[in-house]
Amino acid sequence: MEKLDGKLLSAKIKDEVKALSDSYKQTPILAVVTVGDDEASKVYVENKRKACEQCDMSMMHFSYDESTRESEIIKKIKELNKDKSVNGIILQLPIPKKYNTKKILNTIDPKKDVDGLTDISQGKIMGGNSTFVPCTPKGILEIFDYYKIDLEGRHVVVIGRSDLVGKPIMLECINRNATVTMCHSKTKNLEKYTKDADVLIVAVGKKHLIDKTMIKDNAVIIDVGISRIEGKIYGDVNPDVESKASYVTPVPGGVGPMTVAMLLKNTMIAYELQNK
Amino acid sequence: MEKLDGKLLSAKIKDEVKALSDSYKQTPILAVVTVGDDEASKVYVENKRKACEQCDMSMMHFSYDESTRESEIIKKIKELNKDKSVNGIILQLPIPKKYNTKKILNTIDPKKDVDGLTDISQGKIMGGNSTFVPCTPKGILEIFDYYKIDLEGRHVVVIGRSDLVGKPIMLECINRNATVTMCHSKTKNLEKYTKDADVLIVAVGKKHLIDKTMIKDNAVIIDVGISRIEGKIYGDVNPDVESKASYVTPVPGGVGPMTVAMLLKNTMIAYELQNK
Repeated sequence: MEKLDGKLLSAKIKDEVKALSDSYKQTPILAVVTVGDDEASKVYVENKRKACEQCDMSMMHFSYDESTRESEIIKKIKELNKDKSVNGIILQLPIPKKYNTKKILNTIDPKKDVDGLTDISQGKIMGGNSTFVPCTPKGILEIFDYYKIDLEGRHVVVIGRSDLVGKPIMLECINRNATVTMCHSKTKNLEKYTKDADVLIVAVGKKHLIDKTMIKDNAVIIDVGISRIEGKIYGDVNPDVESKASYVTPVPGGVGPMTVAMLLKNTMIAYELQNK
Repeated sequence: MEKLDGKLLSAKIKDEVKALSDSYKQTPILAVVTVGDDEASKVYVENKRKACEQCDMSMMHFSYDESTRESEIIKKIKELNKDKSVNGIILQLPIPKKYNTKKILNTIDPKKDVDGLTDISQGKIMGGNSTFVPCTPKGILEIFDYYKIDLEGRHVVVIGRSDLVGKPIMLECINRNATVTMCHSKTKNLEKYTKDADVLIVAVGKKHLIDKTMIKDNAVIIDVGISRIEGKIYGDVNPDVESKASYVTPVPGGVGPMTVAMLLKNTMIAYELQNK
């Protein structure tokens, strides 16, 4: 069994991004919009700020409280769209339920949509000609590339059908010629599918949903889930799979660190699109 | 075994569309743009014209030869976007390879995109909030509704990964809580998947690719393929499945007639969006 070391790989990618950033005339800028006071979001945004600094990029943070009108947030995003110094814009999710998340997201200029969540970005993923793939699925693809895990003709099983992870990784794996099965909360007899997976991607957020009795010998296991229970962090996959799988992403240190690195990479792609 | 009678159901839908159309102030108008002289396209466009007439709708046809500049076609689509009397716009595919099909399609105003092929329409399908689902997948969903075929928790296997059929039907079946597997030309051991399908959707265009030895008892079989060989029409599925399946769409008379009916229905949705 080989560990798929997202910590190491993300450090390597950050070095590349930093070198690129240093070669540019202007400092690349990522704008982050937050609404409300989700505790996990605060940690994520702080991690993004640190990662930007490490790579000689800047992060601007626009923080709104829950009483803010939707129109005000949309107005700010439109300003950021026009601002030539801003290369990437993200709306940190989740935001309070009273807002129309899709509407706010779709205000982002597709050329600055570094989270890949506007309808246009998602449609391009579906059409197989993506510009911005959302950061978590992009991080998984980057792991496949680095460790030379070829998907052609292999059976990839994805558990979890979110717009952020499940659906885009399914479509990108189809583009790489995998046969792909999408499982989710309504799937009956989940084990039947997981036991047949050459590559199993689990993005549910349920501690140790998958264990070694549910996987195939030599399967590749990609664990996207993170659950925090009494101060400890758990993945969706029980570490006992390590005795049976060929490759496993650890939690923490697997897919997680790749996500932030891909946000930086997408921001560089945006910078280059806007300055070519 | 029950036949899923697309001919009957499409006639019923056309009656409904006609009644709606007759109730409107203006006559709904569908604009069809063709480029080059694809023989099959001529037949399809003629069928669309007849169907429009049957439903008291109008079809405008803009025909360009292969020497036309891309910019001229794009200019025409922009005119049609602005023309308030035009409700739906489609680019009849395929067009000659020298053109950038995606670029021309993406010129269509998403509010008039009744084929559901712009990036925005496809992104909305991916996000589970579609306005226009492409006509063939929409026709399949309409068959499921009419014959009360519930997908929740069932294993749907789709063969063929086109933007027009395979990918949108896969996503819509996931939205209906099916577990979905996408197979295609690079799938190894296709039978393993087809034999496990509760619902099998075949959209390949290869005469009798699937026969009764490859399906499960009581499976629902949706045959999208059409091959014309020496003047005869064949589906992707051998009719011998009828002895084993619970439901089968015949070819011809299954999915085919539904596609045109759904184009009319999408045009009515567009009319209502633009006139509400």
